[in-house]
Amino acid sequence: MTPPDHPLPLAARAEAFRPSAIREILKLTARPGIVSFAGGLPAPELFPVDAVARACEQVLSSGGASALQYDVTEGHAPLREWIAAHLAEHDGPIAPVENILVTNGGQQALDLVAKVLLDPGDTVFTENPSYLGALQVFRGYQARIVGLASDHEGLLPDALEHALATASAKPKFLYLIPNFQNPTGVTLPLERRLRIAEIAARHRLIVLEDDPYGRLRFEGASLPAVSALPAGQSWIHLGTTSKILTPGLRIGWVATADSRLHEKLVSAKQAADLHTASFNQRVVNALVRTPGLLENHVRELCATYRRRRDLMLSALEQHLPPGCTWTRPEGGLFLWLRLPGEANALALLSRAMEAKVAYVPGAPFWTDRPDAATLRLNYSNATDTAIRDGVARLGQVIAHEVSPPAPALA
Amino acid sequence: MTPPDHPLPLAARAEAFRPSAIREILKLTARPGIVSFAGGLPAPELFPVDAVARACEQVLSSGGASALQYDVTEGHAPLREWIAAHLAEHDGPIAPVENILVTNGGQQALDLVAKVLLDPGDTVFTENPSYLGALQVFRGYQARIVGLASDHEGLLPDALEHALATASAKPKFLYLIPNFQNPTGVTLPLERRLRIAEIAARHRLIVLEDDPYGRLRFEGASLPAVSALPAGQSWIHLGTTSKILTPGLRIGWVATADSRLHEKLVSAKQAADLHTASFNQRVVNALVRTPGLLENHVRELCATYRRRRDLMLSALEQHLPPGCTWTRPEGGLFLWLRLPGEANALALLSRAMEAKVAYVPGAPFWTDRPDAATLRLNYSNATDTAIRDGVARLGQVIAHEVSPPAPALA
Repeated sequence: MTPPDHPLPLAARAEAFRPSAIREILKLTARPGIVSFAGGLPAPELFPVDAVARACEQVLSSGGASALQYDVTEGHAPLREWIAAHLAEHDGPIAPVENILVTNGGQQALDLVAKVLLDPGDTVFTENPSYLGALQVFRGYQARIVGLASDHEGLLPDALEHALATASAKPKFLYLIPNFQNPTGVTLPLERRLRIAEIAARHRLIVLEDDPYGRLRFEGASLPAVSALPAGQSWIHLGTTSKILTPGLRIGWVATADSRLHEKLVSAKQAADLHTASFNQRVVNALVRTPGLLENHVRELCATYRRRRDLMLSALEQHLPPGCTWTRPEGGLFLWLRLPGEANALALLSRAMEAKVAYVPGAPFWTDRPDAATLRLNYSNATDTAIRDGVARLGQVIAHEVSPPAPALA
Repeated sequence: MTPPDHPLPLAARAEAFRPSAIREILKLTARPGIVSFAGGLPAPELFPVDAVARACEQVLSSGGASALQYDVTEGHAPLREWIAAHLAEHDGPIAPVENILVTNGGQQALDLVAKVLLDPGDTVFTENPSYLGALQVFRGYQARIVGLASDHEGLLPDALEHALATASAKPKFLYLIPNFQNPTGVTLPLERRLRIAEIAARHRLIVLEDDPYGRLRFEGASLPAVSALPAGQSWIHLGTTSKILTPGLRIGWVATADSRLHEKLVSAKQAADLHTASFNQRVVNALVRTPGLLENHVRELCATYRRRRDLMLSALEQHLPPGCTWTRPEGGLFLWLRLPGEANALALLSRAMEAKVAYVPGAPFWTDRPDAATLRLNYSNATDTAIRDGVARLGQVIAHEVSPPAPALA
């Protein structure tokens, strides 16, 4: 068991495989007594544990052996049918059931898409900031990531148009989280969706649309997926039951209208891990097929997360010093805070930890030139009391450490 | 939902992502009425369905929420501890618990190792023939596969020595399945293990040892893992509960003494799918921690598979024409058959299918210059009657289609 005395020769891409900054921070913030707004976790007290137990029993008592055997790579047919119908109902026409591949959560869907599409040196467009787990995947395939300017309503279509006109290489795809984005919580309005779809169609740019949070809308009208718009763009649409049922079963999917791409994704999935756990696919299928279960559960999630968001928003209003700004998400798990001026959210974190409150500094979510004054707050996994107390403490730390900006001279 | 009218630009590596020949054959052989020796499936009637149901109940009734939440990438700590202890007990000293990563079955372990180690154009050494799923992974990372001569006792150490002396590029690793190999069913004797470990140490060649079948030994003494030999070689050791419990829960692992490599594998796994299903890890942990369960189950598997192997061996003896040769596995799921002379097992398959018996032609398992007269027979997933009838029919087809070799002139 002695380790070798010479370094193993790693692949070039392994350079990008590093522990994420956030993961290291989350380890610190998991200490007892700390109110943590740092994670991205759904509320475990709301997990449908009893329903999962009944689903396990049901799956094992009828055809248990096939639920424990190897399975086809594409996924369990009844679950794929449900996914196709669920997308059609909530997001518009996305993909026929034949073009749906079940994956280990949305993260594997991202990985497989990148594996099939990205050569080293390829360019990928993303919102800026964007989901760190996606940036890690793209970097792992040695892609060049170009973050496009985004505001409180998400990606700016003009920034996309400009980047396409000036980019030295055509991007392989545009990665978008249109609903309650991670990390910012912002939602792309319909008008921007239409323009982005139109620009993508004109430039033959693939839209990789990631929608883990879309069903968790607390207010405002649902919007069609960019993938479902009739502009003629190419798309790949990713989803998961992690945020609407439970993450621990690891069920996600990738859907596309392009059959050739689907076949390549299936072959890549087969090499990656043969198939998603047969048992879990049947358990999730039993859950989503139980009349009313998912609807009621999503309603409960939305009611709770909405209350927590409201508590957080009003606590921020009450306790944060002037100069702080934040997003007001219409759904999902996160909001995004900017400290005044040149404040550094990473430097501030150790003070916050001393005051027993934690968050994730925003820097790692930026594709380049990070705005160090930003940070992400999660409200889905904190009690009402924790939100009130935690934001009050955070307000004190910020007020103490960050000088408010000098008033502009008239 | 209209598919795009122009082909999507795929990555160069996607060229290797194709439906496997075996997968297409398996679809054909799944027709009703066919006795199939084609798959690689464990016997579903032996799955511990009730024990899995009890484990699910136990996991969900105590701490159910954490079993359904996101988890750490490395894996569930108690399961990792069991894996380390299990390896130490059965295979010798392999890796400390800190260096064990839980994966989605053994296939994902293979994929992550290849992802972290292989650059395009890198060389990999394998047995020849070897596991098709591994060859697919290596090809997916654009490696050059060099198959080394192997016989009824596995890889020839002299072939390894010769290949290292003459290879144009140093291989990144040697991929080995030492116990009841897929597809051949052969086992590497101790003396060859010792020589291979010594050669690997001398050449600083990493041994990637894949051991999905090792516990399914029906006869003969257990042998130490190549990874556990004290020669000073570097190693990566892969395992799974797919063949000793159930494949449908997708639990495997990768173990190495090299901490830096382990860290890279963890980061690659994090990008690939965050973590292996929290629930499944706890269910498998509950199963392996139930006193006597795994031991009794493995005993039952070995008794059944041994009987089926014996039935297949005697049916082959009885029904196959002269000139056919086959391996006599001491464990596992497969044996390997060679037809006389220049026979073509793929061409013969359609005749066999007409006679309602199926197998996998051997050609895809060869790294190059396939021996078209070879084929793989699975005995673990066929009833006694199916084995007797299927081999009798197979014997008729072979006798009819394949001319026995002319007797040698004295």
